[in-house]
Amino acid sequence: MSNRVNVLDKGYIILHETMGDDRTVANAARVSYDKRTEELSEKDERLIKFLAREGHTSPFRHATLQFEIYMPLMVARQLWKYVVGSDHTMDAWNESSRRYITEEPTFYIPQAGEWRSAPADSKQGSGDLLPVEQGELATRDLESYIATGEMYYKRAIDSGVAPEQARLFLPAYGMYVRSYWTASLQSVAHFLNQRLEADAQAEIQVYAEAVRELAIEKFPVSLAELLGEEKAPEKECIDYIQQSYE
Amino acid sequence: MSNRVNVLDKGYIILHETMGDDRTVANAARVSYDKRTEELSEKDERLIKFLAREGHTSPFRHATLQFEIYMPLMVARQLWKYVVGSDHTMDAWNESSRRYITEEPTFYIPQAGEWRSAPADSKQGSGDLLPVEQGELATRDLESYIATGEMYYKRAIDSGVAPEQARLFLPAYGMYVRSYWTASLQSVAHFLNQRLEADAQAEIQVYAEAVRELAIEKFPVSLAELLGEEKAPEKECIDYIQQSYE
Amino acid sequence: MSNRVNVLDKGYIILHETMGDDRTVANAARVSYDKRTEELSEKDERLIKFLAREGHTSPFRHATLQFEIYMPLMVARQLWKYVVGSDHTMDAWNESSRRYITEEPTFYIPQAGEWRSAPADSKQGSGDLLPVEQGELATRDLESYIATGEMYYKRAIDSGVAPEQARLFLPAYGMYVRSYWTASLQSVAHFLNQRLEADAQAEIQVYAEAVRELAIEKFPVSLAELLGEEKAPEKECIDYIQQSYE
Amino acid sequence: MSNRVNVLDKGYIILHETMGDDRTVANAARVSYDKRTEELSEKDERLIKFLAREGHTSPFRHATLQFEIYMPLMVARQLWKYVVGSDHTMDAWNESSRRYITEEPTFYIPQAGEWRSAPADSKQGSGDLLPVEQGELATRDLESYIATGEMYYKRAIDSGVAPEQARLFLPAYGMYVRSYWTASLQSVAHFLNQRLEADAQAEIQVYAEAVRELAIEKFPVSLAELLGEEKAPEKECIDYIQQSYE
Repeated sequence: MSNRVNVLDKGYIILHETMGDDRTVANAARVSYDKRTEELSEKDERLIKFLAREGHTSPFRHATLQFEIYMPLMVARQLWKYVVGSDHTMDAWNESSRRYITEEPTFYIPQAGEWRSAPADSKQGSGDLLPVEQGELATRDLESYIATGEMYYKRAIDSGVAPEQARLFLPAYGMYVRSYWTASLQSVAHFLNQRLEADAQAEIQVYAEAVRELAIEKFPVSLAELLGEEKAPEKECIDYIQQSYE
Repeated sequence: MSNRVNVLDKGYIILHETMGDDRTVANAARVSYDKRTEELSEKDERLIKFLAREGHTSPFRHATLQFEIYMPLMVARQLWKYVVGSDHTMDAWNESSRRYITEEPTFYIPQAGEWRSAPADSKQGSGDLLPVEQGELATRDLESYIATGEMYYKRAIDSGVAPEQARLFLPAYGMYVRSYWTASLQSVAHFLNQRLEADAQAEIQVYAEAVRELAIEKFPVSLAELLGEEKAPEKECIDYIQQSYE
Repeated sequence: MSNRVNVLDKGYIILHETMGDDRTVANAARVSYDKRTEELSEKDERLIKFLAREGHTSPFRHATLQFEIYMPLMVARQLWKYVVGSDHTMDAWNESSRRYITEEPTFYIPQAGEWRSAPADSKQGSGDLLPVEQGELATRDLESYIATGEMYYKRAIDSGVAPEQARLFLPAYGMYVRSYWTASLQSVAHFLNQRLEADAQAEIQVYAEAVRELAIEKFPVSLAELLGEEKAPEKECIDYIQQSYE
Repeated sequence: MSNRVNVLDKGYIILHETMGDDRTVANAARVSYDKRTEELSEKDERLIKFLAREGHTSPFRHATLQFEIYMPLMVARQLWKYVVGSDHTMDAWNESSRRYITEEPTFYIPQAGEWRSAPADSKQGSGDLLPVEQGELATRDLESYIATGEMYYKRAIDSGVAPEQARLFLPAYGMYVRSYWTASLQSVAHFLNQRLEADAQAEIQVYAEAVRELAIEKFPVSLAELLGEEKAPEKECIDYIQQSYE
């Protein structure tokens, strides 16, 4: 399998490197015993399942993964918030900046059939897809707005404005940024458990799915277990938050 | 002094709460000794200076501060990157989201005299101010571009597009977001040491200055020293600690 | 209520300072809304309960607590392992050291009625209490062994051995150390959820109980909820780990 | 070269796995540029040196190392304190426990020529070596004390005392424990910069030296620089980055 998955219209995720595999988890958990697993046994698998189920997460922090992610800024923001807002801090992050000029800005533009309606019963998230005819108008508007922004941006740069200030003219939520994200297996699983859920933003769900595809190849037992069962996202909860937040 | 400082055209920082003061640092450093400082003595000050100068940072992590910050997204991004990219992770962060609709979007608009030129000899940062006449054009263009974005955004919302997707129409770099940032004194000092520097983006420098003003009131000795000259590992210092620890 | 709880024969916990209260959690969660709670309402309580139940933990990281803990080294080790091994890293830790000579070493000595048997069906933890007559012998042996260690330690120090090497003569597991521990409310709750459980070591359970008592005064709603329901420590799990680890 | 270094009388360090190499650092630093280094160039080396010297540490957090360490508890304590007390938290740690009985306890016993005197002018650390005749007595005393402890420990276990309580009879500072430590390259360098210093405890200095030997093989450029002279913020550096980043 390739180490790259394409995402959205122009994005991608590459899994550049990993450290360890399922045996790493079992070995870290058995540090009180002076022996290491060379080949993953059934007993090792039972141990990994036990650890995941019982929330003994520290052994999962000894395996690490490094991704390169090319994504719209609004997806990067969600990923950052997860990294900062949670305290799963075994993460490194480096990201491209528009304070430098190194590449033409590139934007995420939903196709006509990809625009989503506001949900009927929530202040957050999306409902069903909008009719294609309506989506066509939205896509066309967005193309226009981006083109206008690029024009203003170029005008500002040409007239000598500093790039770090000229970027005020860019419709930045959809602008692609490139990041290296290094994280422990536990951290990746935590991200997936949050972002694969149905109430996550659709755009980050597809990135999460790509992360899952790439990571499960390397950690089939551990990751499957860490992503197991989990908190049913009950309908009532979603109603609850509506009320609670008001 | 007020616990609030206004920043840029519409932003602000509020220092809502703190835990500890300069004595906290001295007490944490003297944990091997069964006594606590009730009033900050000269000996305590010498100890704090020694700790800051020698890079013994752990005692500075026992004091904490909580800020509310209202800032353009491009400033928030820089603050996040500091939080994520560094490993000074004793930080909590919660931020407003445009996946909810709760307030009208608000934008940072530099005044005519506030536009900066690209630096002559660097790919990053800003040079001198641009002539006011040129800045007038840039401000007017930005006002137009924001108005257009707001029009498109409203049109999308009115036609039923989900807010989380409609925000693609917003020139988001300048859009104000609101955050709670809780951090240790060490973490705040680390942020200030990076962001008060002349090569930091001008907009984040003014936020950093406001953070400094608010924090120095509460931690006059510790913060002054942490922001000070840096590590001169003088012989006398080593003598110092001997005395200070007594 | 006092801010101090005595623990074991000579230990204690003091809650020196806190930042924030239950309102802090509600305010951080509502950052998308431009208003703050001044008095905790029923709606705020529902919000806090929702956040705790759904695992939205970031708002609980904006409240912080600072403890001074005087505990046997074997308890400190368990507390450290929790801090390091978990990734709930919004913690600061400073601890006394026997590389300095500042106080006479002090040791935890279980009373005759406090010695516990090995569990019948587990490799870890404790079973029932041992008969008092047997405990009397154990206590007497421990007193002898500590006295012998102190004699050797003093002899080494008197003959000029460096304190950092002389401490090899101390039966260190029971030796008291003093620490400052600063942590977020989330981190404290995570520690309590692990260490209040019946299979935790008895000595750390009593420290955890003291932490709970002190913290619940300040954060009655949030902490009660964070410590709520939770993973039933089913008997079968404990059997499982036995098998899995073999 | 082997991935194992023996340390002290019975200890060792094994470098089990690494993720990345010097190129990882350069690639993470150049994330704003859409190209990756395949072979480490002179320009890459200049970039790495610049980053290390200027304290731009985030790129060094994308490379990770996993060690197994067998060390006396007093060394483990110092390593923990570094991990907890600093906020270089991209670390995972799992350690053997004497709450389980899995191996006979093993102890570090300095040889006759390895005992150190108290320093003349400090409350911490060690001075010169003590005369061998005096060391012979200290070694013999320690052997006796350990033998007595083992006798008491065995007696307690045989009489049914729970292992987690029986360990109060062990002179634990010198007892060997086994750990897995996973850390970023930055974290490893930070540990080395602290623990290779002459005022660190002698026992941890030899472990630090072994970590250095093993790690420098994998990250020759980055680690050499991170352990180097430190921050001379020369004018040429600023020129450097301009060129390096191109």
